Amino acid sequence: MNEQQVEGRHAVAEALRAGRPLDKLFVLDGCKDGPVISIVKTARKSDAVIQYVSRERLDQISETGNHQGVIACIAAYEYVAVEEILQKAREKGEPPFLFLLDGIEDPHNLGAIIRTANQAGAHGVIIPKRRAVGLTAGAARASAGAINYTPVARVTNLARTIEELKKEGVWFVCADMKGTVMYELDFQGPIGLVIGSEGEGVTRLIREKCDYTASIPMKGDVDSLNASVAAGVLAYEIVRQRMYKK
Amino acid sequence: MNEQQVEGRHAVAEALRAGRPLDKLFVLDGCKDGPVISIVKTARKSDAVIQYVSRERLDQISETGNHQGVIACIAAYEYVAVEEILQKAREKGEPPFLFLLDGIEDPHNLGAIIRTANQAGAHGVIIPKRRAVGLTAGAARASAGAINYTPVARVTNLARTIEELKKEGVWFVCADMKGTVMYELDFQGPIGLVIGSEGEGVTRLIREKCDYTASIPMKGDVDSLNASVAAGVLAYEIVRQRMYKK
Repeated sequence: MNEQQVEGRHAVAEALRAGRPLDKLFVLDGCKDGPVISIVKTARKSDAVIQYVSRERLDQISETGNHQGVIACIAAYEYVAVEEILQKAREKGEPPFLFLLDGIEDPHNLGAIIRTANQAGAHGVIIPKRRAVGLTAGAARASAGAINYTPVARVTNLARTIEELKKEGVWFVCADMKGTVMYELDFQGPIGLVIGSEGEGVTRLIREKCDYTASIPMKGDVDSLNASVAAGVLAYEIVRQRMYKK
Repeated sequence: MNEQQVEGRHAVAEALRAGRPLDKLFVLDGCKDGPVISIVKTARKSDAVIQYVSRERLDQISETGNHQGVIACIAAYEYVAVEEILQKAREKGEPPFLFLLDGIEDPHNLGAIIRTANQAGAHGVIIPKRRAVGLTAGAARASAGAINYTPVARVTNLARTIEELKKEGVWFVCADMKGTVMYELDFQGPIGLVIGSEGEGVTRLIREKCDYTASIPMKGDVDSLNASVAAGVLAYEIVRQRMYKK
């Protein structure tokens, strides 16, 4: 998972120069050194999230013990624009089928979900920039190659993206235990399936933006399903309904 | 995952004396030392798989670098007998719903599948002794507590267990890409759902014992789904059919 962590002024500046897609940049809070300021300046022009952290935190994140005040997390794969995902649906002549992940933090889950999105025939996956794992090498591995076929978009504001996609006619359904049993909802049109984070589920703001709340029947004693399993179960209910269209 | 690995003659003998459930015992091939022979003798009386390995392999497995010729893998949880799983179904007055895992090797997948079995209302999970991960601490963690509610049986010969369960009226369905689309099969009776390993799928011997082969529709570009996602998708097709019984 961590092959993509680049540490130290020279290595980070080099990665930026090479145009490698930056997920995150950790910078020593209060650091005023020329090379670090210049790195931050370049990173600002990209899509990267810049986080100022204490020396203790930076030491903790560091794998080499020699970060010199900067650590960059490089995306293993390129992100696409949301519009490209819609374009893919149009090209196939299919109603859009999107996955939106509201804060998935485990790269294995992200990878498994991208793999599921690919197999379920979804046109793409949308993830937020903050409080979520990006396309790390670990996520790419867990996707078993699906990352090469299923585009992933990374957006600043998931709620705003939902609003914009609604204008394009997409309906949103989020997974929540308190929702309607999924078998009783209609998933045949253009749909965005919203999956919550491992610990918290779908956040309130996002849940309120959704048109439907779908629940998976839970007959057990524990809280929920693994996030990637839940995504799979919901995605295949969508597949089933589309296969047996009334 | 590895809290359960016990190394060295004294520690292993102690774990055996304490009656802790042994999954596997790695022994230095050709070792004739008294204490090691005595450990092997005790382990033989238990259900443990004993593997004789070279010094190089043992060094590789070792975490402490001080294995003294023996390394034991201790199950984090107790296994039950297959009969206890059937008994649980009878008590609930439900047709048995079992998961059989033909060689799941990743503890995260095993844990996620036990969690899914719990939520889907299955009565238990059956795993083979060899070429499969046992109830390690990692699997228990990934089960999110479900391991405390959903019993797991561990059998020497999965094919024979299937034969025996058939006499009890259980039908077996295995997941395989070449099977009938799952939506078109009937899963309403007593059922054993067979999930293959991450790499190889269901082995030929086990596949031939199954009554049905069910496939998940695959619209994508990669080979398959993650094993725990596939288990979830199939399990919930069983749940759906049982909820909307004709």
